[in-house]
Amino acid sequence: MEVLEAMKALRNVRKYKPVPIPEEKLKNVLNAVRLAPSAENRQPWKFIIIRDEERKRKLVSACGSNHKFMVEAPVIIVGCALPDEAYPALGSYMCSYPVDMGAAISHLVLAAANEGLGTCWLYDFSEDRLKGVLSLDGYVKIVGLTPLGYPAENPPPTDRKHINDIVCYDEYR
Amino acid sequence: MEVLEAMKALRNVRKYKPVPIPEEKLKNVLNAVRLAPSAENRQPWKFIIIRDEERKRKLVSACGSNHKFMVEAPVIIVGCALPDEAYPALGSYMCSYPVDMGAAISHLVLAAANEGLGTCWLYDFSEDRLKGVLSLDGYVKIVGLTPLGYPAENPPPTDRKHINDIVCYDEYR
Repeated sequence: MEVLEAMKALRNVRKYKPVPIPEEKLKNVLNAVRLAPSAENRQPWKFIIIRDEERKRKLVSACGSNHKFMVEAPVIIVGCALPDEAYPALGSYMCSYPVDMGAAISHLVLAAANEGLGTCWLYDFSEDRLKGVLSLDGYVKIVGLTPLGYPAENPPPTDRKHINDIVCYDEYR
Repeated sequence: MEVLEAMKALRNVRKYKPVPIPEEKLKNVLNAVRLAPSAENRQPWKFIIIRDEERKRKLVSACGSNHKFMVEAPVIIVGCALPDEAYPALGSYMCSYPVDMGAAISHLVLAAANEGLGTCWLYDFSEDRLKGVLSLDGYVKIVGLTPLGYPAENPPPTDRKHINDIVCYDEYR
């Protein structure tokens, strides 16, 4: 799929076919994550691929009632950051890990769309609860997660702001 | 360009041809930014497109000696976040704006590669100094910036970690 076409094809898919993902497609998605840019190319991330049904069920139950649909997807991917490995002074004011993770998960969802797979990038979860289920220690931060699988629905695109509302020229307006 | 090919083509370009960017190409790059995913689809961003030579020169001089090469590029794009418009509780622990900006700038650099344009995503700048030059107030955060133009060099790809070092299955390892 062409880059802009894949960007236009991005959807939040909340219904999945109970069909496994071919290894080759999963490999392509993970390779896209691997290629994501990061501050000083530090790649401060680790992605947990959850396929085991029992673990998936536990994870989904820790995600709250809005996200039960995830259990249908054959895979859930949890995006973890390693802040100690990230660039500590982005803009001279913050650790780069959330920006790095934004790029990495963005590569993930785009590559999935490119493979004909659906995702639903989640931000509204309790990191504490997920860390409990995944037995993660304090060193790791969970920044995002998504189901991955063949879509069983084709939702319309979400609205975007007009280009004039997000772009300005030469000075801030 | 195909999605994975564009991801593989990403480079940090530090030499640019003194050639303007066709409007159509700039429009495609900005449209890609517009299509980026964000928490609750809030799109908490504004991108400043700097083409005026005088402003470009001032901005570059505020970026420090490592980044003087930027002045050759016909355009510099400054990615600003609007934290008050972002989702305040990502993972129940942080404001989403850095993650949103990671996705948006990631779309920018990918779409640029797709158009045959070079970028160099910068993280090591002083937000304070840039805000002074751009007359930005405290409400806005500068999260990243990049020159944009036709590459006058073809640097080799940067290394990436092995896939086994960034992926684990069913539990964190």
